[in-house]
Amino acid sequence: MRIYLDCFPCFLRQTLDAIRFVTADTEVHETVVRQVLELMRRTDARRAPPAIGQEIHRMIRQVTGNPDPYRQRKDDSNALAMKLYPQLKDRIRSSRTPLETAVRLAIAGNVMDFGLYSSLGGVDVTETIDKALSADWDPGCLEEFAQAVDDARSILYLGDNAGEIVFDRLLIEELPHEKVTFVVKGSPVLNDATREDAQTVGLTDLVEVIDNGSDAPGTILESCSAEFRRRFEHSDLIVAKGQGNYECLNDVDKDVFFILMAKCPVIATHLGCGIRQMILRRSRVVNPTMPGGRKEQSHARL
Amino acid sequence: MRIYLDCFPCFLRQTLDAIRFVTADTEVHETVVRQVLELMRRTDARRAPPAIGQEIHRMIRQVTGNPDPYRQRKDDSNALAMKLYPQLKDRIRSSRTPLETAVRLAIAGNVMDFGLYSSLGGVDVTETIDKALSADWDPGCLEEFAQAVDDARSILYLGDNAGEIVFDRLLIEELPHEKVTFVVKGSPVLNDATREDAQTVGLTDLVEVIDNGSDAPGTILESCSAEFRRRFEHSDLIVAKGQGNYECLNDVDKDVFFILMAKCPVIATHLGCGIRQMILRRSRVVNPTMPGGRKEQSHARL
Repeated sequence: MRIYLDCFPCFLRQTLDAIRFVTADTEVHETVVRQVLELMRRTDARRAPPAIGQEIHRMIRQVTGNPDPYRQRKDDSNALAMKLYPQLKDRIRSSRTPLETAVRLAIAGNVMDFGLYSSLGGVDVTETIDKALSADWDPGCLEEFAQAVDDARSILYLGDNAGEIVFDRLLIEELPHEKVTFVVKGSPVLNDATREDAQTVGLTDLVEVIDNGSDAPGTILESCSAEFRRRFEHSDLIVAKGQGNYECLNDVDKDVFFILMAKCPVIATHLGCGIRQMILRRSRVVNPTMPGGRKEQSHARL
Repeated sequence: MRIYLDCFPCFLRQTLDAIRFVTADTEVHETVVRQVLELMRRTDARRAPPAIGQEIHRMIRQVTGNPDPYRQRKDDSNALAMKLYPQLKDRIRSSRTPLETAVRLAIAGNVMDFGLYSSLGGVDVTETIDKALSADWDPGCLEEFAQAVDDARSILYLGDNAGEIVFDRLLIEELPHEKVTFVVKGSPVLNDATREDAQTVGLTDLVEVIDNGSDAPGTILESCSAEFRRRFEHSDLIVAKGQGNYECLNDVDKDVFFILMAKCPVIATHLGCGIRQMILRRSRVVNPTMPGGRKEQSHARL
């Protein structure tokens, strides 16, 4: 997905949020904002939005000299989500449709964004989880997801944020996890999960965890390592969490299930849904017996 | 008031809204957005925010070749507000405190912004008017306003938008209008009122109407004509409508009553009020018998 003009005000807003989180020095704020204005002015709008996010957060790390400004926030997010883990696990165990419950929780994890933009008051978390578990749900795409998981020999699960990956763990525990490889970012960017987070929440004990070699807040294939790209190419099925991954991979010729909340009008328009709608959507069905595959999209909205 | 970093995303948002209103040509949208990014990158943040608005709208008029893109919108706003005039006039006539009712309506006129950002459904207009008329009100600043109006030999009333100026007319009709001069913009910018609008809504038959010689969406004194600056300097009292005028004049050493709604977080913070709060505020009391005058501010919030 390309950058839309509506993304520009949002990049600036995010830059301000991020740099103010990282430092209180107002001169640094202004320096970074002016650099981002220049970056946006000369950017190629055909790039995916996370390519700008990647440059903005590199700039913030460079200007502040802090290689991982969100480390504490990520630790807090992981700890908070791990506290919820036992009760969420119980809800899945006691569910008559445990896979569906786990997918709903995985979406809830993205909705809450255990990172930069959420105050994470206990009430909101509980509310979001209850909403995700009880919202209307079209079972069609879930059945497709279950079938695709069964059919696949290898599943590459692209993680998103720290904290949220506890919810990913809950979903992966409902999948045939010997097939699953979980992917984290190659190095810190924003509150995205890295290997350290996967270890903290116990994912490394459950499945193979690899990193994508990149510091983009999404999966920009050309920014990833050759090893990751090889794994991506040879996986039968991709599960991609969050908006950043949707923005990078929505046009890729692979069988991808996107799990996310539409957090901005641009994405919502692109998905044909409302803002804050919770989404499980398949990119396209690539049927090896039909050259080129079937190209229609299917989706379920919470 | 200087430009805050938070203004930058908002300038971009306003640019997109404006250029999309003026033309459907997406290449023009992108050209203008990139020019505005460059403009912001090199701007001196000590300028008042309307100085950027002035440059953005000059750019839009130049790129589209349309010298007055909002003419139709302004005509519609004037027509709609003029339809309301008789019933609003009745409300003032039947009020036990007609000046207060007229000031409340003048704020309502700014709240509704009969221009770019409002759909102006009938219900919203009525609701806003009712809200402005019934909201809690600190009578202190109103008494000061009435006193200042009595004391002044000359009052300069700085208008804001088309449509809204019908509400200004209602207020001016409650003032000793032989003292009042109404000010419009020197040439079209956004939906700001020009002489044509003042004629349309009957202000030219009521008071002297002058223009400020400027195309800024506010009153940037150095952008105004020498003649206007002379009038500004020699007026005893200034009434300044809207956020743009507040942004330009909040630090000026004159006796100014600002009448506006705080429409953005930056202004609300600056005023020490909530967003969407309706404001009547005196800048400072310049008492000629006390050198330097009293410097405290007084204000009433609806």
